[in-house]
Amino acid sequence: RMSRKILVLPGDGIGPEITREAVKVLEACQERGLDVTVDEALVGGAAYDAHGEPLPETTLAKAKASDAILLGAVGGPKWDKIEDLAKRPEKGLLGLRKHLGLFGNLRPAILYPQLAEASSLKPEVVSGLDIMIVRELTGGIYFGQPRGIEERNGQRVGFNTYIYSEAEIERIGRVAFEMARKRNKKLCSVDKANVLEVTILWREIMERLAPEYPDVELSHMYVDNAAMQLVRAPKQFDVIVTGNMFGDILSDAAAMLTGSIGMLPSASLNESGQGMYEPCHGSAPDIAGQNLANPLATILSVAMMLRYSLDEPELAERIEGAVGKVLDDGLRTADIAYPGTRRVSTSEMGDAVLAAF
Amino acid sequence: RMSRKILVLPGDGIGPEITREAVKVLEACQERGLDVTVDEALVGGAAYDAHGEPLPETTLAKAKASDAILLGAVGGPKWDKIEDLAKRPEKGLLGLRKHLGLFGNLRPAILYPQLAEASSLKPEVVSGLDIMIVRELTGGIYFGQPRGIEERNGQRVGFNTYIYSEAEIERIGRVAFEMARKRNKKLCSVDKANVLEVTILWREIMERLAPEYPDVELSHMYVDNAAMQLVRAPKQFDVIVTGNMFGDILSDAAAMLTGSIGMLPSASLNESGQGMYEPCHGSAPDIAGQNLANPLATILSVAMMLRYSLDEPELAERIEGAVGKVLDDGLRTADIAYPGTRRVSTSEMGDAVLAAF
Ligand SMILES: CC(C)[C@H](C(=O)O)[C@@H](O)C(=O)O
Ligand SMILES: CC(C)[C@H](C(=O)O)[C@@H](O)C(=O)O
Repeated sequence: RMSRKILVLPGDGIGPEITREAVKVLEACQERGLDVTVDEALVGGAAYDAHGEPLPETTLAKAKASDAILLGAVGGPKWDKIEDLAKRPEKGLLGLRKHLGLFGNLRPAILYPQLAEASSLKPEVVSGLDIMIVRELTGGIYFGQPRGIEERNGQRVGFNTYIYSEAEIERIGRVAFEMARKRNKKLCSVDKANVLEVTILWREIMERLAPEYPDVELSHMYVDNAAMQLVRAPKQFDVIVTGNMFGDILSDAAAMLTGSIGMLPSASLNESGQGMYEPCHGSAPDIAGQNLANPLATILSVAMMLRYSLDEPELAERIEGAVGKVLDDGLRTADIAYPGTRRVSTSEMGDAVLAAF
Repeated sequence: RMSRKILVLPGDGIGPEITREAVKVLEACQERGLDVTVDEALVGGAAYDAHGEPLPETTLAKAKASDAILLGAVGGPKWDKIEDLAKRPEKGLLGLRKHLGLFGNLRPAILYPQLAEASSLKPEVVSGLDIMIVRELTGGIYFGQPRGIEERNGQRVGFNTYIYSEAEIERIGRVAFEMARKRNKKLCSVDKANVLEVTILWREIMERLAPEYPDVELSHMYVDNAAMQLVRAPKQFDVIVTGNMFGDILSDAAAMLTGSIGMLPSASLNESGQGMYEPCHGSAPDIAGQNLANPLATILSVAMMLRYSLDEPELAERIEGAVGKVLDDGLRTADIAYPGTRRVSTSEMGDAVLAAF
């Protein structure tokens, strides 16, 4: 078969240094027979600085032509003053999601037993935590029209539209039911159906899908309660499915429960299995360029890429095994270090994973 | 001066039994010279069952004529099947907020030292926690138009509108700045200004107010980061101000950090100081009618009422002192009990607070 194309988008802040380590791991996979070509392009603030656009045409064209994308992170205070929302680094990311139709965002929140102490929660509350959040990524209030700021009756109003169609809900619902089927067969759909009409439709469509997945137990929870339950007893969840905005909030809260957001990868998939893979953490401008950042979430994003877009589950498992090994060996970047472990830099961590690979 | 009017709305689930204990405390205040008349009315599912409406005209009229309202809780599975959102118990609550203009929702998240063990977070992360969340309560996506479910291009879509005007943002901003001024002078405004236009306006107005409150330090945080930071290091916050939907989610998460949501009161105020007071927890239908519920949040809501609507800070402090005393004495309802404490019922807890008053 033809060699598949991977596009690397380092982005901003710590993006370049963490993707560098992940690319080393990709190259090690090539040495073990993975037939891929790796290209690179600009996105986010880096693209804005070079071309005045967070998502230049050339980057978008390369992204469309690739089988999978590895993204570092976008954004930072340097670009916060850009007045035009369309030029902000975030629009590079949102544009990629939208243009590539990457509606299915998978965000695992897993507590690594080696890192149990890093959590701000009591060990008994989080030990063994393994949740998968399925977030709709190309609709909802992120993209709804009309939107804007305008004058009405002599004063300015800001407005956005939270909107979902049946088809959009159904397709993310199917991703979530399938995911639950492969896991512990429990799916919790999160909405605010006691207040918002859009989520009444959401709940109705989830209910309509349920009979097609009789092996999966579907439940519903209001978003405020879900935020509480994640704090109180997160292990009650297996798979959570929700819209773009609620998913943004809940997946970050869930990731932080593990205390090691620097460890968590994510995948964003479209209908043909093309995917974008990125760490859950952001661009961390405060530590950028200092060889301090944790590259493991990005390396684990490569593992997700191998599993979901490149159909190479064995290589994915090898990467995950290598990450487990370096953690067992006590190697830690600053964000997950504690007394008795060995502090390493970004590149040392990448090298250690390679050595264990 | 004229005796002031308090309206009690027990509502659904555990509402009647917890408000009963709070009314006992109100009566004890009357014996100590508080000049109020206390009336009662139906709201929520209870009102729907009796009159087919979650907010009957008579209830609304009484509410408008009162100086302060004490609400138990509304809702429960019994009414979840009502198709028409306008008839659901929640609409009783939302209608009261809207018709009375109760835009300023104050939700404290305080960790009682006597209950430190109840939190799912590590003691060092939450000990001494004292956050005040100021949530806008009569605008945003809860009330925005247009809203509904309708057919477009052959399929149904659900939609809601997230909208704020300058004036709405300014008035909740002022409540928050004033609150910060009375506390530790730190205000964090939570938005999603990297994605949503409505919150770009929100951020702009908060910035515009800041010079009027030079003693208050204003910061901004994206809502996803705020959800993370609440889990990671909640003590970094003093006052948080945010819109209706984000406030719903974050205040519940913050309340749960304390592990004793059964302890947390809330106030909802309008421009003339009229207020509605209610516990942060819900109607807990699973334990309703069993004399098991914790009445302390409702009793503490009476204290908030005395402070914010009735200008009786000494009585408010007496109630808070009495609650502290029963906790010191080791009395606990089921939700906050642990080995070595004395399990008491709803009414026993109410009686104990009265005895300590
Ligand atoms: C950077 C931002 C636009 C983005 C989002 O809100 O989706 C980020 O928070 C995420 O969750 O990937
Ligand atoms: C019952 C519901 C409508 C309400 C809300 O969403 O505001 C509740 O969750 C609250 O926070 O008071």
